[in-house]
Amino acid sequence: MAENGSLSEFLETAVEAAKRAGEIICKGFYQTKHVEHKGQVDLVTETDKACEDLIFNHLRHCYPTHKLIGEETTAAYGITELTDEPTWIVDPLDGTTNFVHGFPLVCISIGLTIGKVPTVGVVYNPILNELFTGVLGKGAFLNGNPIKVSSQTELVKSLLATEVGTKRDKATVDATTNRINSLLFKVRSLRMSGSCALNLCGIACGRLDLFYETGFGGPWDVAGGAVIVKEAGGLVYDPSGKDFDITSQRVAASNPLLKDAFVEALQQSE
Amino acid sequence: MAENGSLSEFLETAVEAAKRAGEIICKGFYQTKHVEHKGQVDLVTETDKACEDLIFNHLRHCYPTHKLIGEETTAAYGITELTDEPTWIVDPLDGTTNFVHGFPLVCISIGLTIGKVPTVGVVYNPILNELFTGVLGKGAFLNGNPIKVSSQTELVKSLLATEVGTKRDKATVDATTNRINSLLFKVRSLRMSGSCALNLCGIACGRLDLFYETGFGGPWDVAGGAVIVKEAGGLVYDPSGKDFDITSQRVAASNPLLKDAFVEALQQSE
Repeated sequence: MAENGSLSEFLETAVEAAKRAGEIICKGFYQTKHVEHKGQVDLVTETDKACEDLIFNHLRHCYPTHKLIGEETTAAYGITELTDEPTWIVDPLDGTTNFVHGFPLVCISIGLTIGKVPTVGVVYNPILNELFTGVLGKGAFLNGNPIKVSSQTELVKSLLATEVGTKRDKATVDATTNRINSLLFKVRSLRMSGSCALNLCGIACGRLDLFYETGFGGPWDVAGGAVIVKEAGGLVYDPSGKDFDITSQRVAASNPLLKDAFVEALQQSE
Repeated sequence: MAENGSLSEFLETAVEAAKRAGEIICKGFYQTKHVEHKGQVDLVTETDKACEDLIFNHLRHCYPTHKLIGEETTAAYGITELTDEPTWIVDPLDGTTNFVHGFPLVCISIGLTIGKVPTVGVVYNPILNELFTGVLGKGAFLNGNPIKVSSQTELVKSLLATEVGTKRDKATVDATTNRINSLLFKVRSLRMSGSCALNLCGIACGRLDLFYETGFGGPWDVAGGAVIVKEAGGLVYDPSGKDFDITSQRVAASNPLLKDAFVEALQQSE
């Protein structure tokens, strides 16, 4: 039964897992400021691991034959190849740096791919109590209310989000800031939130108009958000304008009206 | 009586004004996505103006002889010189771009200077219901709970915030991104929230370790936050390391342990 579960059943399962993991994150979030640095690192690792275990156990229990890919497991055992099988791709704690600093933009991201297509997405920020959900063909929601991408048509009036990543070699940093320099002449302003999954949800609910990031951690950063953006009427694509590849560590997102101009601006910024 | 009011009475008055203005901001915030662009501009202007009128009327009623400086009034009538008189410095809506886009980092900032010294500060985000307060010698609070700056001692583990501002001439944009490039080699990561006052409060409650911005709107962006940072155990200073000048449109903030290293890094980034 569960193995042949409907997409809405998959969504329900993922939401339940995310909510339970959210309790662990909330608990840790308000502790980080009160422990020593070494303790902070441990707390992050423990929270990350506890959330992934909880989510994986829940998903395994409900869908024993589904595949699982998680940030923590991959860090420990190497990347699991993405196949056509139903596969849950999980980031138990997106926005780790925010978590450590008590900056309230953290989330759990859970995505289900079937035939490699992102089909169910859940992104939950337990601190702000914002639950973003999306199911292929069924729309996208924030706390149960339908959301849609912005209707912005001009780059110059658009709010752009990106991140500076974690690599600090000169070539990467120079490329990052050169790109930002080029884009700043074309957009209204720039935000950096520290969470790839929440940036995608920002596109989905129209808080942001444009988002790109390259060199992020892995498919767990985008698997949940990608469905949510698409179901909110948006597009997820490679920054080059080519098709989005969930395993490529490259992503751009916007409403359909801005895509061509954004891709052109991104190409000119390279 | 009111004229000789205690600082805690001034604080209470400012909080009341901020809360009432917050209701107007909340109402507008959830409307912006549903109006045309021209309507959006009007909505921002109307919200900004309505909030400033409400706050000014409230303050004038309570303290008829106090001076008032507000972003909207200054935009209309030019800058009012800051004197030693008790002066309320008000930003009725900080994070205007966020407001237009429905990005939830917006706030009301109210500061009182006496003898040009920031003495009472209120920064209120009505969307996230976060009320930051500070009174000279009486500590800083978030929703009534005491806050303090981070205890971070190393730049490399510090979370930095800045903004790209609104000027888009080549010299300004190049200076902005060159500075970011230089700093990225020295800090852990970078956030851009779109609100100067909320960045200061981020320093005050330890969510952020380092913040600098130059070329922002005016004293209303910093008058409220400056007291809150200081009362949370932090320092507010000119990015050069010199004394903070509330009228200079230049600000940096951190805990005391990071100041010297931050100023050095800022100087090297020029």
